Amino acid sequence: MPVQPRTPPGVMELLPPQQLAFQRMLDTIRRGFERFGFLPVETPVFELTDVLLTKSGGETEKQVYFVQSTGALKEGKAPELALRFDLTVPLARYVAQHEHQLNFPFRRYQIQRVYRGERNQKGRYREFYQCDIDVIGKDTLPLAYDAEAPAVIHGIFSELAFGAFTIKINNRKLLQGLLVAFGWEPELHQAVLHEVDRLGKIDDAEVITRIRAIKPEVPESLQQGPESFVRLLRAADGGPDTFQVLEPYQQSATVAEGMAELRRVYEGTLALGVPASQLTIDLSIARGLDYYTGTVYETFLDDHPKLGSICSGGRYENLAGHYTKSRLPGVGISIGATRLFSQLLEMNVIGVNEAAVAQVLVLTVDPTLTADYARMATELRAAGLNVEVYGGEDKLGKQLKYADRARVPLALIYGSREHDAGIVKVKDLRGGGEAKEHDLPRGDLVAAVQRVLRPES
Amino acid sequence: MPVQPRTPPGVMELLPPQQLAFQRMLDTIRRGFERFGFLPVETPVFELTDVLLTKSGGETEKQVYFVQSTGALKEGKAPELALRFDLTVPLARYVAQHEHQLNFPFRRYQIQRVYRGERNQKGRYREFYQCDIDVIGKDTLPLAYDAEAPAVIHGIFSELAFGAFTIKINNRKLLQGLLVAFGWEPELHQAVLHEVDRLGKIDDAEVITRIRAIKPEVPESLQQGPESFVRLLRAADGGPDTFQVLEPYQQSATVAEGMAELRRVYEGTLALGVPASQLTIDLSIARGLDYYTGTVYETFLDDHPKLGSICSGGRYENLAGHYTKSRLPGVGISIGATRLFSQLLEMNVIGVNEAAVAQVLVLTVDPTLTADYARMATELRAAGLNVEVYGGEDKLGKQLKYADRARVPLALIYGSREHDAGIVKVKDLRGGGEAKEHDLPRGDLVAAVQRVLRPES
Repeated sequence: MPVQPRTPPGVMELLPPQQLAFQRMLDTIRRGFERFGFLPVETPVFELTDVLLTKSGGETEKQVYFVQSTGALKEGKAPELALRFDLTVPLARYVAQHEHQLNFPFRRYQIQRVYRGERNQKGRYREFYQCDIDVIGKDTLPLAYDAEAPAVIHGIFSELAFGAFTIKINNRKLLQGLLVAFGWEPELHQAVLHEVDRLGKIDDAEVITRIRAIKPEVPESLQQGPESFVRLLRAADGGPDTFQVLEPYQQSATVAEGMAELRRVYEGTLALGVPASQLTIDLSIARGLDYYTGTVYETFLDDHPKLGSICSGGRYENLAGHYTKSRLPGVGISIGATRLFSQLLEMNVIGVNEAAVAQVLVLTVDPTLTADYARMATELRAAGLNVEVYGGEDKLGKQLKYADRARVPLALIYGSREHDAGIVKVKDLRGGGEAKEHDLPRGDLVAAVQRVLRPES
Repeated sequence: MPVQPRTPPGVMELLPPQQLAFQRMLDTIRRGFERFGFLPVETPVFELTDVLLTKSGGETEKQVYFVQSTGALKEGKAPELALRFDLTVPLARYVAQHEHQLNFPFRRYQIQRVYRGERNQKGRYREFYQCDIDVIGKDTLPLAYDAEAPAVIHGIFSELAFGAFTIKINNRKLLQGLLVAFGWEPELHQAVLHEVDRLGKIDDAEVITRIRAIKPEVPESLQQGPESFVRLLRAADGGPDTFQVLEPYQQSATVAEGMAELRRVYEGTLALGVPASQLTIDLSIARGLDYYTGTVYETFLDDHPKLGSICSGGRYENLAGHYTKSRLPGVGISIGATRLFSQLLEMNVIGVNEAAVAQVLVLTVDPTLTADYARMATELRAAGLNVEVYGGEDKLGKQLKYADRARVPLALIYGSREHDAGIVKVKDLRGGGEAKEHDLPRGDLVAAVQRVLRPES
């Protein structure tokens, strides 16, 4: 009795046409990262557990996958290895470990899968790609780098062509300063920002009620309450006028610093060619309290707000405090490619009408001409074309059906008749139902095929 | 006290220059696979244990890494997941699972990492890349596909330029037939072939002695013993004359079938443009008994025979017997990219003199011109160049040192003087010690930079 072939739940495994589309998406992301000179890094899928789990347990640790060889498992030892759950901890370990061999500011991209022991539910992946860039400074990192991330995002999502999108930026210092100005004690900041993060997802009134619940009695000393705080965050028009709204709060040094940073990042991003129509200052973007300390980014597809942010990140004070005493500030963004791809595929934003890898399929019409088929394929490959030879001696109809299912653009037919006439018949299968046919000279096959493939050139 | 940042033993983690070289190697392999129209497939890093470990334990199972989430670990359950140890079992599972949605012959490539719980010793990796192609037929697979694999190997290793290489081919049916002809009982075949695999690695005489030890008494009924068997296998000159040596054994139907197959694969490979000087028939190539059933391949770097085969594979009867009743014969090859890369790096066959990802670094000479630097970078990027902007306001010397360490070909200098003169100074850092300088017109920067980068065009 055969074992039922199946994948574990929570993984994305694709059929070849979808895999091709996904591959092209990853290639576009990589090209976008390289366009800004980021360097590739890959780290092992597992890390030593003491290296990976430096933080004190909690939510993250519950989702970790531990790894043990057969021997270690039998001995009942505590696992020494665990799968990475993000690319940030491995980056911190990498930079701390190789610090003296790296060139700072260190700009790296990393496109690899990460693992989370998520409960099994739709849209939750246990294995998924993250595509990250980070710039890490030694001791300091100029603010100029904060303006780069939105430009990278803009380049990539323009090329991916998933429709209109908006990059939202904000600054955590600014938020922090406002929280103080509005009278919240530091220990309540996290709770308030947690609610702020809901702005734009649920009703403002609902958010106000939730913030009130954090501290039901508003002391008289406070001039403004949750309502005016939320109103302020939502008053931003997204452009430079937003800074006018904030002017009354500039007596706070933290607010002033945050504003200055935000203004420079905004202007720097525009200078890098991101159109103002696609860049929005949104004071309600908060992104968790303990990690980001300055600029924060989120990205939304205008026509699909329900997807939430499709590319996020920000500036942090110190990357690798767990591993080194060096101060390593950084700024980075991350694209969760697996979730994004699978959602856009489901919504038909990503189509799978992609052509095959092969551009040309050489059919086997006459077995005595096999060596000719090999030669034709070799000539075409030498010119940089992707070419497949149908190896079986099946009927022409079966071979053409294979070509059609594979979405190969051109099929070459070369039987004894064509051989004698010195031509090769090419069937253009791109049109759908009716295939166009051309007779190409055998002696000039490569150039002729290239012309049929790209009539414009 | 910080945790010491370190990787687990047995993994290859690279610094960016090496990672770039490795990335280019993987890209070349991928391009080589796509040149023949193979389709990309990726499978999850882990499989369900009952799916992965269908075979009855043994050596392989001992090297498996099991995976458990925190919860499962605490409950002391048997692990449900394990990391893949090759790409063949996942391919079998994939093809069986998606059989009805695939287009046969199914041609897939897969470039992913695999995991083995190896003992910790030099050259043994616990995590390493495999780069595989396979063509899988439904019920049957024409022999024409066997001739393709060496052509793919030839294309890839020619482009990788690791030096001269030779592809060796043989046929398992032929070996099997000869074993019978030489009087070995089927149950001894595996042991004899195990010794045959040593031919070329140790002395022939030593191999003969070892084969004799399998069956010390040679019955009188046998006309020929281990010595003449070994002499026969070694008599092959590598070219078509090899078949003459085998003619006396053609009364065996198995030998005759193996010979016919080998001849067709040999000739088919030549027709695909592989030069006869790089293709050798080697009757001593055996490659383990239980999996391969026809054509087998090995590939050697002529100047580095000690590396052993750097790309191997063969034809098998049935891919997925554990998962489906369908008969799925196939043929494939595999490149162990991690081991090959690390060895060639150590031997200096692969250099790490690669240029950075960025082709141009825009220096920050005058902070008031930041917006100009952004615009220049954006113009160059729009033309497809990879460009980095140095974000800090450091001294010129420090910025140039960064450029030099990063191996960026060109650094652009644009201060108030250049601004007023309408030029951009470009430092060509490729020469090593003395950087060449050019003044380029600001108004025609893109074309001018492209000319400096590629003077030939």
